[in-house]
Amino acid sequence: MHTNIQQISGGITAPSGFLSVGVRCGLKTTGNDLAIIYSQEPSVAAAVFTANRFCAAPISISRQHLASASTIQAIVVNSGCANCATGEQGLLDAQRMTEIVAAGLNISSDSVLVASTGKIGTFLLMNKIETGIHNALSVLSRDGCLSAAEAIMTTDTRPKQAAVEIIIQGKQVNIGGMAKGAGMIAPNMATMLSFLTTDAMLPKELLNKMLQEAVNGSFNSITIDGDTSTNDMVAILANGASGIVPNESDLNILQAGLNLVCLELATMIIRDAEGATKLVRILVKNAPDKNSAKIIGLSIANSTLVKCAVFGADPNWGRILCAIGNTGVEIDLKDIDVYVGKVQLVRNSCARGFDHAEAHQLLSMDEVELIIDLKQGTQEAVVLGCDLTTEYVSFNAHYST
Amino acid sequence: MHTNIQQISGGITAPSGFLSVGVRCGLKTTGNDLAIIYSQEPSVAAAVFTANRFCAAPISISRQHLASASTIQAIVVNSGCANCATGEQGLLDAQRMTEIVAAGLNISSDSVLVASTGKIGTFLLMNKIETGIHNALSVLSRDGCLSAAEAIMTTDTRPKQAAVEIIIQGKQVNIGGMAKGAGMIAPNMATMLSFLTTDAMLPKELLNKMLQEAVNGSFNSITIDGDTSTNDMVAILANGASGIVPNESDLNILQAGLNLVCLELATMIIRDAEGATKLVRILVKNAPDKNSAKIIGLSIANSTLVKCAVFGADPNWGRILCAIGNTGVEIDLKDIDVYVGKVQLVRNSCARGFDHAEAHQLLSMDEVELIIDLKQGTQEAVVLGCDLTTEYVSFNAHYST
Repeated sequence: MHTNIQQISGGITAPSGFLSVGVRCGLKTTGNDLAIIYSQEPSVAAAVFTANRFCAAPISISRQHLASASTIQAIVVNSGCANCATGEQGLLDAQRMTEIVAAGLNISSDSVLVASTGKIGTFLLMNKIETGIHNALSVLSRDGCLSAAEAIMTTDTRPKQAAVEIIIQGKQVNIGGMAKGAGMIAPNMATMLSFLTTDAMLPKELLNKMLQEAVNGSFNSITIDGDTSTNDMVAILANGASGIVPNESDLNILQAGLNLVCLELATMIIRDAEGATKLVRILVKNAPDKNSAKIIGLSIANSTLVKCAVFGADPNWGRILCAIGNTGVEIDLKDIDVYVGKVQLVRNSCARGFDHAEAHQLLSMDEVELIIDLKQGTQEAVVLGCDLTTEYVSFNAHYST
Repeated sequence: MHTNIQQISGGITAPSGFLSVGVRCGLKTTGNDLAIIYSQEPSVAAAVFTANRFCAAPISISRQHLASASTIQAIVVNSGCANCATGEQGLLDAQRMTEIVAAGLNISSDSVLVASTGKIGTFLLMNKIETGIHNALSVLSRDGCLSAAEAIMTTDTRPKQAAVEIIIQGKQVNIGGMAKGAGMIAPNMATMLSFLTTDAMLPKELLNKMLQEAVNGSFNSITIDGDTSTNDMVAILANGASGIVPNESDLNILQAGLNLVCLELATMIIRDAEGATKLVRILVKNAPDKNSAKIIGLSIANSTLVKCAVFGADPNWGRILCAIGNTGVEIDLKDIDVYVGKVQLVRNSCARGFDHAEAHQLLSMDEVELIIDLKQGTQEAVVLGCDLTTEYVSFNAHYST
């Protein structure tokens, strides 16, 4: 880690000028289910939305607002209802959420983003939402980040926050974030959400580029079951409250800090994946290019058979080679080496003897490392996944709507 | 079904001029594990090989022979060892298998195809193979199709055969076939193999085209866990022993017969998928084109979450819409209807009330039908899949190599 970057406790209110809170409005059976993030000054904003073409109403509204408004000043998020597959009424409800927040804060509704997570195919109970928003606005504070992180949880077992303090030009800049996970117990609760804040001063185009890079190496490099939800969204607000305009070399440090916050949150999501017992870290190295390495890593991470083998701590390298061959990536397949931790399972794409007990032992740990050495370039990618367990299947089968 | 086509019992020796047998050579712990198909006359041949770029040695050798020889007269298949990830030695062994068969039958080794299925990363025990081939050649017969179908099984619980009798030009033509499944209990036993025979007289180019069409609608429209094995192969021999040269309209009937045999075998594979309790038939209709319909069907069939929901008999239509949205197929997503059997779950891509008990009941049957009406064209595709069960995960996890 860069010496100018230090991990600190807290989340979205770690940077100056951000207030937040999570409250209970009653969409979930228990707990907080409505969060607001508020920047005291208008913020430059950037976001990455779900690639699922079946996107939910709040995604459409947030996309519109981000395109039309020059700055964003608040984000409102509810859990317990995804407001997805809700047609015209869903769009009206999502827009109305931004209007209620805007009215309370005396800002334009275009400068409010909205996100929802929860059940697909049910309508928002707008009375509860409205009361919830009013309650939340009255208690916004610097201390509200944990309650906000709790309010966006669905099947997550714990809130997910991360923050860093960065020293540039002798002064302090902060980046904070919160996230909720993509694992699913209850049906239709697929969404991965993350909200990030910083008090650095960054132009919109640059913020967009930095967010994209951070997301590629974190939220887009993790997979639980290969599904992309209808409601996925990662958004960042940069309010410039630190007063510092970063120069070229500062930007590298800020990018490193943002990457770190995103990777921390993404790792928390995988660790909290339902039914999963292990985090699987897949390093694909010596690839001709980064993208090929990532495609191969994701193919391995998403292979049902590899995931079952990891659950059973079986050093089943045939399934790993099979997943590599199934990508269609144009690489030479003759000389691939495969390792679990320090135990080499495959040399030059061929079977070789190895210590099964040792491999089994390494695959029995909480954190499993698979290394794929393609030996045909200098690029690499890391993908995080998890095992597939009987518990995952039970959870996802035996819930009846 | 076309009135000139009749399903009959039997398999690869139903057409005239084909002999076959399965014997035990000792690669598996029990049962037959080596099969030979022999055409008394040189046959026109066509084959479809795995799309996995990591293909096994027998795939490479069979591909070479099919390209270099004008006719094929025999196919040799072993189970118990996939001869995959076996490098140079694997290629020599696969080639040697064709040479032993060729010597015994006094034909060219180029006119012999070879296939293997079983464990990845172990070498063939060539002594056993050689003895097995000699034994098999001495007992080839018209009655040997069942023993051959048994000999290609790995984790299949029953042999898979199908045959049809077709009347064209007032005479009888037959098509027969056998297959083994793609489900996996033991690790690395992924392969889907099918061998087809006919006594129709067909030029190579046409046979190729007919096989491709039949495979697209059958073996390429089924999915158990989305993995394509390193050893997959479907081959057909047409020996012309019926003496009939089909005319244009006969060809349509022959194609329908071949489609039927392939679909029967593909359905048997799904019914015998490990750990699966249900066959899921997904009809995607009123699509702009056949390919889009098939991509959407396969996305639904391969969605871990949809498969879990089917296992639990949960009418979880949100996951179905999510799987459709994840394909990236350029269709209009606004007006999609989704049914389970006759119960409509979704109208115009929106939630609607339905009888949950009835939907649950339909999802509890051995055979589940999902219908996706895209309402934007006239094309359709049917995809067959199965549920994902806790048993599947246990099987695939708790086997230690």
